[in-house]
Amino acid sequence: MVKIGIVGISGYSGGKLLDWLLKHHRVRVTYISANNTQGPATTIWPHLKGKTDLICQTYAEKTAVASADIFFLAVPHTVAMTIVPGLLKAGKKVIDLSGDYRLDSAQEYKKYYKAVHADKPNLATAVYGLPELYREQIKKARLISNPGCYPTAGLLALLPIASAHTALIESIAIDAKSGVSGAGKKAVLALSFCETNENFKAYKVLNHQHMPEIELYLAKAAGKKLTVDFVPHLLPVNCGILETIYVRFKSKLTLDKIHQIYKRFYKTEPFVRVLDQGGQVELKHVVSTNYCDISLAVSNNGKLLVVTSAIDNLIKGASGQAIQNMNLMCGFKETEGLL
Amino acid sequence: MVKIGIVGISGYSGGKLLDWLLKHHRVRVTYISANNTQGPATTIWPHLKGKTDLICQTYAEKTAVASADIFFLAVPHTVAMTIVPGLLKAGKKVIDLSGDYRLDSAQEYKKYYKAVHADKPNLATAVYGLPELYREQIKKARLISNPGCYPTAGLLALLPIASAHTALIESIAIDAKSGVSGAGKKAVLALSFCETNENFKAYKVLNHQHMPEIELYLAKAAGKKLTVDFVPHLLPVNCGILETIYVRFKSKLTLDKIHQIYKRFYKTEPFVRVLDQGGQVELKHVVSTNYCDISLAVSNNGKLLVVTSAIDNLIKGASGQAIQNMNLMCGFKETEGLL
Amino acid sequence: MVKIGIVGISGYSGGKLLDWLLKHHRVRVTYISANNTQGPATTIWPHLKGKTDLICQTYAEKTAVASADIFFLAVPHTVAMTIVPGLLKAGKKVIDLSGDYRLDSAQEYKKYYKAVHADKPNLATAVYGLPELYREQIKKARLISNPGCYPTAGLLALLPIASAHTALIESIAIDAKSGVSGAGKKAVLALSFCETNENFKAYKVLNHQHMPEIELYLAKAAGKKLTVDFVPHLLPVNCGILETIYVRFKSKLTLDKIHQIYKRFYKTEPFVRVLDQGGQVELKHVVSTNYCDISLAVSNNGKLLVVTSAIDNLIKGASGQAIQNMNLMCGFKETEGLL
Amino acid sequence: MVKIGIVGISGYSGGKLLDWLLKHHRVRVTYISANNTQGPATTIWPHLKGKTDLICQTYAEKTAVASADIFFLAVPHTVAMTIVPGLLKAGKKVIDLSGDYRLDSAQEYKKYYKAVHADKPNLATAVYGLPELYREQIKKARLISNPGCYPTAGLLALLPIASAHTALIESIAIDAKSGVSGAGKKAVLALSFCETNENFKAYKVLNHQHMPEIELYLAKAAGKKLTVDFVPHLLPVNCGILETIYVRFKSKLTLDKIHQIYKRFYKTEPFVRVLDQGGQVELKHVVSTNYCDISLAVSNNGKLLVVTSAIDNLIKGASGQAIQNMNLMCGFKETEGLL
Repeated sequence: MVKIGIVGISGYSGGKLLDWLLKHHRVRVTYISANNTQGPATTIWPHLKGKTDLICQTYAEKTAVASADIFFLAVPHTVAMTIVPGLLKAGKKVIDLSGDYRLDSAQEYKKYYKAVHADKPNLATAVYGLPELYREQIKKARLISNPGCYPTAGLLALLPIASAHTALIESIAIDAKSGVSGAGKKAVLALSFCETNENFKAYKVLNHQHMPEIELYLAKAAGKKLTVDFVPHLLPVNCGILETIYVRFKSKLTLDKIHQIYKRFYKTEPFVRVLDQGGQVELKHVVSTNYCDISLAVSNNGKLLVVTSAIDNLIKGASGQAIQNMNLMCGFKETEGLL
Repeated sequence: MVKIGIVGISGYSGGKLLDWLLKHHRVRVTYISANNTQGPATTIWPHLKGKTDLICQTYAEKTAVASADIFFLAVPHTVAMTIVPGLLKAGKKVIDLSGDYRLDSAQEYKKYYKAVHADKPNLATAVYGLPELYREQIKKARLISNPGCYPTAGLLALLPIASAHTALIESIAIDAKSGVSGAGKKAVLALSFCETNENFKAYKVLNHQHMPEIELYLAKAAGKKLTVDFVPHLLPVNCGILETIYVRFKSKLTLDKIHQIYKRFYKTEPFVRVLDQGGQVELKHVVSTNYCDISLAVSNNGKLLVVTSAIDNLIKGASGQAIQNMNLMCGFKETEGLL
Repeated sequence: MVKIGIVGISGYSGGKLLDWLLKHHRVRVTYISANNTQGPATTIWPHLKGKTDLICQTYAEKTAVASADIFFLAVPHTVAMTIVPGLLKAGKKVIDLSGDYRLDSAQEYKKYYKAVHADKPNLATAVYGLPELYREQIKKARLISNPGCYPTAGLLALLPIASAHTALIESIAIDAKSGVSGAGKKAVLALSFCETNENFKAYKVLNHQHMPEIELYLAKAAGKKLTVDFVPHLLPVNCGILETIYVRFKSKLTLDKIHQIYKRFYKTEPFVRVLDQGGQVELKHVVSTNYCDISLAVSNNGKLLVVTSAIDNLIKGASGQAIQNMNLMCGFKETEGLL
Repeated sequence: MVKIGIVGISGYSGGKLLDWLLKHHRVRVTYISANNTQGPATTIWPHLKGKTDLICQTYAEKTAVASADIFFLAVPHTVAMTIVPGLLKAGKKVIDLSGDYRLDSAQEYKKYYKAVHADKPNLATAVYGLPELYREQIKKARLISNPGCYPTAGLLALLPIASAHTALIESIAIDAKSGVSGAGKKAVLALSFCETNENFKAYKVLNHQHMPEIELYLAKAAGKKLTVDFVPHLLPVNCGILETIYVRFKSKLTLDKIHQIYKRFYKTEPFVRVLDQGGQVELKHVVSTNYCDISLAVSNNGKLLVVTSAIDNLIKGASGQAIQNMNLMCGFKETEGLL
């Protein structure tokens, strides 16, 4: 049994990690911490009553290091980068769910996260934890930067076509819609029930920190920079992301051909489901699962591809993918504890 | 045109007051204030863009007094009682939507509102603004204590039977369910979308500050103290209160008889609708209106009456009822601006 | 007082027409009908209890013609075109809320509505009831084809830029999200609460009957055919449409310039509000109103404009706009009964 | 591996059975059927894509009997009683989730289910599948009548006090609120999103078919008939039941004493959690689990107990409890596949 530490147990991602890891047959959660809450895990998450006796502590490196082998960091960005160096130095493996190690340049980090990066050496070596793209590197990694929720749905939707027909792509626009849990567990008026329920709006239009993350890894896969115009919206549901992606081509492609490219690309992937032609993804088919569903449509003139992809933002978009990465790092079956 | 001041424009009740008073043909809103927000009313309430040029100020008695004739206070309890004395002294009429003047004893106030009452003289003379009970007093009042949302639905549901058959009543339990706006416009984690949506729970069980308010005015109407057991719940909707009220009798009564009592009691009331036998109230039939709907059912043995009543907590439960009171105080048609 | 008939009172648009017209000071509703429901209007719409004594009948031309001067048709497409000819022949004015008279070609109608058009003469003369585009024609019209909900939000968002810079536009994609009432009041499993709540999905991707309607009137305004790629989604809210529109240019434009174009275009319009730069429209600011809100953003390279527009699909997207058209046809103030 | 048949796979309970049984380590689902839908299980339940190759058939006894050992019936009432006799005759064990075998008298059945009972012999021998009450009988049963959703939450909330202080109880009123999935997967206007969302109402007041079911098993446990007044409400959430239960006593009891009774009663129960004093159950802590949470409050005079209980109506209120029963019948660990 591998011993697991979760840092940041009180947020939605930390909570989901605890839920799923408590059921995982190959690991044991031995350490949990949170900054603003201490005491029994079941006080923070009453639905777990009867399932765990774990006690949540304030994070202390020494205790943490003595208690577990692999650490999940479900803390806000700028906090993760103060914790990672110590854990790595102590020989631990780390899966960071924050945005701290996702961009490969400290300048970009500053631009989008409005903070100076405090751990450039590890920024350079962190492996981006999208198994569909970096499975082999993840297996050997000591520090995983777990992808953002929007980038997970966006990259999985774009990788096949961007790899196969890079030169043909003229423009890409992602119209993304996320459930409210994506904004975190916070006392903020704009996230209150009455302000969000029966409402809908775009935010950070063309200006969201996940935009450069998508562009970065899309470029690595495609071998060429592709501009991605990204508009996120706040959807009045608890969980789930659906992205409607408009890919314009310089010349026409058929749906048959594109569908074949996607089916082939994800042929052996355990967590990506390409729907049959004519099908359309729905949030409810992926919420509470680690799946990413993808559907495709092409305009009559063959020059516009509309890809729709759906994930649970807290599972495939955060905690589930983090466990998938852990499975790979530990040599477990990749789907262990995730089906 | 009567000149109107609204103190506390940024909360949900203050906002609704502004919405409805801007459409009222007999008054003009001439003063608005809020404590934490200043500037154009349309910045606070963007849906009003194009409808008003009013500028929101920090409350200042001198300016207020110079600007308007009647004041609505939509401020938190404990704040209202610091504002009321000055306004009354300046000869203004006041309709207070907070809980500060609802209970008639400073002791009870302290017990339920956890604060010392700062304005006992006016506490003694305030008129409880439930038109169905105190219409004549309201017409002559200078200070109206506008009823709480739960008490409005509860009292209107109980007054007919409690007046007609006081001695027969053995027990009363109110199972109340309120939309989230009842908790106010606040940055509080427990009111955030993800904590409230797809959830339901009771709170302040047998311990809510509206319980003594219901008991007080029920006793005044019935001529006898009747204990009311009150359990409120948080309902995942924006607006609306539905109360299911269990009235047990010492001996049997028929539905026909009770229905007749209710129909007669509310025969001339413009804002209470007693449904036909067999009907059941629904939130959606009263939300955005100043109506209170009431339906009745009786158990086979005739010893249990189940009254269900429904209102919009922000309208008949707050702002609409306040305007109804204003209409009475000003000699306007009681329904003016409310249909 | 103009006498009004509403055909199809039991659907959501018919119900909203009744709500708003009952409050309108210049008209009196004298005739209401529905096909599957008869009896008091308050049985069909219990929230109206106390506000009307109207009795709903099965539609009969003779009675209808004898009862009212102007008719609103809130019936399904294919039904409207069987009713319109008789009413026009009898000298009545008609505002049709269905899709029957929106496209100008019977072929296109057949392609998108899967039915043969039964009234080609009137199809040729119907005026498209978008006041911002055809105000003068509407004033003189006898048959108004009231715009679809998606086209209203889409056209208002596109008209200014499409008119000002037709030649510059390279592509247009509309990502539209509509509340569930847009699908009508129907017993359909896919629209049931459990299938829709906490869910989100696209439907009729690139294939919706509102797409040719948008293209048609955009072409008329721009003087040139512009292809519009249209993807609608089902949003888990009762009311409201928000469209996020991606307009790509052949060469760059600044936000300042575009914002100025929109402000000027809608300068005197009573129901279109162009937000300040940096603002973003929200459903809750337009729901229950006849407004269309519009906000604008431009990509760094100046070659992508993102327009977001929001309306209430049942008001500006249907019944409110129909009343706005009626006001114009009757010479009333355009905003009468709509503020 | 025990072979499992599920009859009625297309409803919400049948779907949940499939979800949970596919993950159960001791059984294999070998037969699934539905009346109106055939084909791959993943067409009916797309979220299962990648998890099962099962094909759904029209129910045929011969095939069914040849395919599985234990059958779950998730079919409407009146249908189950036509299927049960054949399966039992073939030596199969049956867990019936419908209401057909819950009441012990054909007269009561007719009164509440409006149908003549077609299988009186098995009605007499069916075991009521509430493990907390009939664990030993369940272990040996061949036909389990799985409890209704409301009765599960109601009985678990009432059994401890009704057993301990039968004579003291004066009256019981259950104010129950259920998520919409409790009404089944149906194309019904009243269950459509726009009619249910942002709405709330009571239905079948004092007249629901679950009322006699609660009274029947409460009487068996208490040794005395206790009248239960039952008022169900439709809650705008997908899943979950919360019941607020008002138990009036002839003389006073303390919260300490009652809390102790409940803690003792459920001391060894794996799926009932009695909260600490002062705690209140919430839907979100039980939804998607097989738990029933219970909280307690007592009025100042000690004569009113308010019990609040919460379950997931589809899990502990249907499919989860059915699997719990199967575990007992098969000699598996009671919690197998349910944590």
